Amino acid sequence: METLTPLDELVKALRCLPGVGPKAAQRMAFHLLQYDRAGASRLGAALQEAVQKVRHCERCNTFTEETLCALCQSPRRDASQLCVVESPADSLMVEQSHAYQGLYFVLMGRLSPLDGIGPKEIHLERLLKRASDGVVREVIVATNFTNEGEATAHYVAQLLHARGLKVTRLARGVPVGGELEYVDSGTLAQALRERRLVAD
Amino acid sequence: METLTPLDELVKALRCLPGVGPKAAQRMAFHLLQYDRAGASRLGAALQEAVQKVRHCERCNTFTEETLCALCQSPRRDASQLCVVESPADSLMVEQSHAYQGLYFVLMGRLSPLDGIGPKEIHLERLLKRASDGVVREVIVATNFTNEGEATAHYVAQLLHARGLKVTRLARGVPVGGELEYVDSGTLAQALRERRLVAD
Repeated sequence: METLTPLDELVKALRCLPGVGPKAAQRMAFHLLQYDRAGASRLGAALQEAVQKVRHCERCNTFTEETLCALCQSPRRDASQLCVVESPADSLMVEQSHAYQGLYFVLMGRLSPLDGIGPKEIHLERLLKRASDGVVREVIVATNFTNEGEATAHYVAQLLHARGLKVTRLARGVPVGGELEYVDSGTLAQALRERRLVAD
Repeated sequence: METLTPLDELVKALRCLPGVGPKAAQRMAFHLLQYDRAGASRLGAALQEAVQKVRHCERCNTFTEETLCALCQSPRRDASQLCVVESPADSLMVEQSHAYQGLYFVLMGRLSPLDGIGPKEIHLERLLKRASDGVVREVIVATNFTNEGEATAHYVAQLLHARGLKVTRLARGVPVGGELEYVDSGTLAQALRERRLVAD
C-alpha cells in the first residue's frame, strides 16, 4: 500500500465534508495551502477542539460543551412550552424570531425510513420522557414543512397526544412580505384553508 | 469580548474554505459533529500536518514536502520540455493524459490585475530563470483558455520569446467525442481557423 503524502491525505480528509467531491476537495486543499495557511491551522485546531469538547445537552439534545446547554440552564425561559425542531440551526432561527420564550428539544434529524432513520435515531423516547416531566404543558412541533418533516411531526404529535399533552404545529400560510402572484399554489391553498377572522 | 464556544469557533473556522458561507459552514459543523466525528478528527490532523509539511518545490513551484517534487527528481522525464500551468490540479490533468514526458512549472495563479495579481505574484522571474537553464528547449504554455489564462499565456510567451526560447501553446479545437451541433461557436471558429491537412 502506497503511503499518502500530507497533501493527498488532506484532499482525502476534506471529502468528509457534506457536498464536497474530489474536485472540490482538491480545490479547497490548494486554496488553503496557497492563500490561507493561518485559516487552515485554525480550522485544524477548531476541529480537534470541537470533536473533543462538544457533546449533547442532556435535556434538549442540542450541541453544547456543558451537561446542560445555556438555554436549558436559563431561569428566564418558560418551562411550560417545549418546541421540537429537527436541528440546532432550526432552534437558532426560532430564537432569532424573538417570538418564543420556551425551551427546545432537538431531534437531530427527521424520520426517514428509507435512510434507516426511525424513531430511535431521532431520540423520540427521550423526547417523550422530556415532555412528560409534568411542567411542559404545550409541545410546539416545529419540524420542517417537507414531506419528511411533516411525517415526523405527525408521528411525534400522535405519541404526545397519547400522553395527554397539548400539541401544536407552526402556522402555514403566505410568508410576510409575500405577494400572492408569486406564492406557490400549495401554500396559497393552505392559507385559504387556515384563514382566520379579521375582526375580533 | 465574548469568548466563542468550540462549536461557534468551528463554524467560523470553516468559513476559510473557498465557497463556504455562514449557512454552509453551520451545516458542515453540525454534520461532522452528528455523523462523522472520526472524519472531523482526521481532517483536523490532516490540516495541521499539511500546513506544517507542505511547501513549494524549489524547481517547479508545485506543492511537495521535499526540496524537489517527485517529478522534478525523476531521471526519466525529458528536461528539454517545460510545461507552464496555473495550478497543481492542471499538471495532474496533463499527467493523466499520458501524452507528456517533460517537466512543469506551476504558476500557482494567473495574471489578474484587478485582483492585484501581477507578474511577481505568479513567480514569473522564477519561471524565466528556470526556463533559461540551458537545458529547456521548448516551453509549452498550458494556462487555461479563459480570458485571464489567455492574457497570462500572452505575457509569459512574450517574456520567453525575448530570451530566444521556443514557446508553444496547447491546440484549441473541437474536443474529442465532440458533436459539432453542441460545440460553442467560438470553439468551432477556432477549429476552422486552425484546421490542418488530413493527408500527409
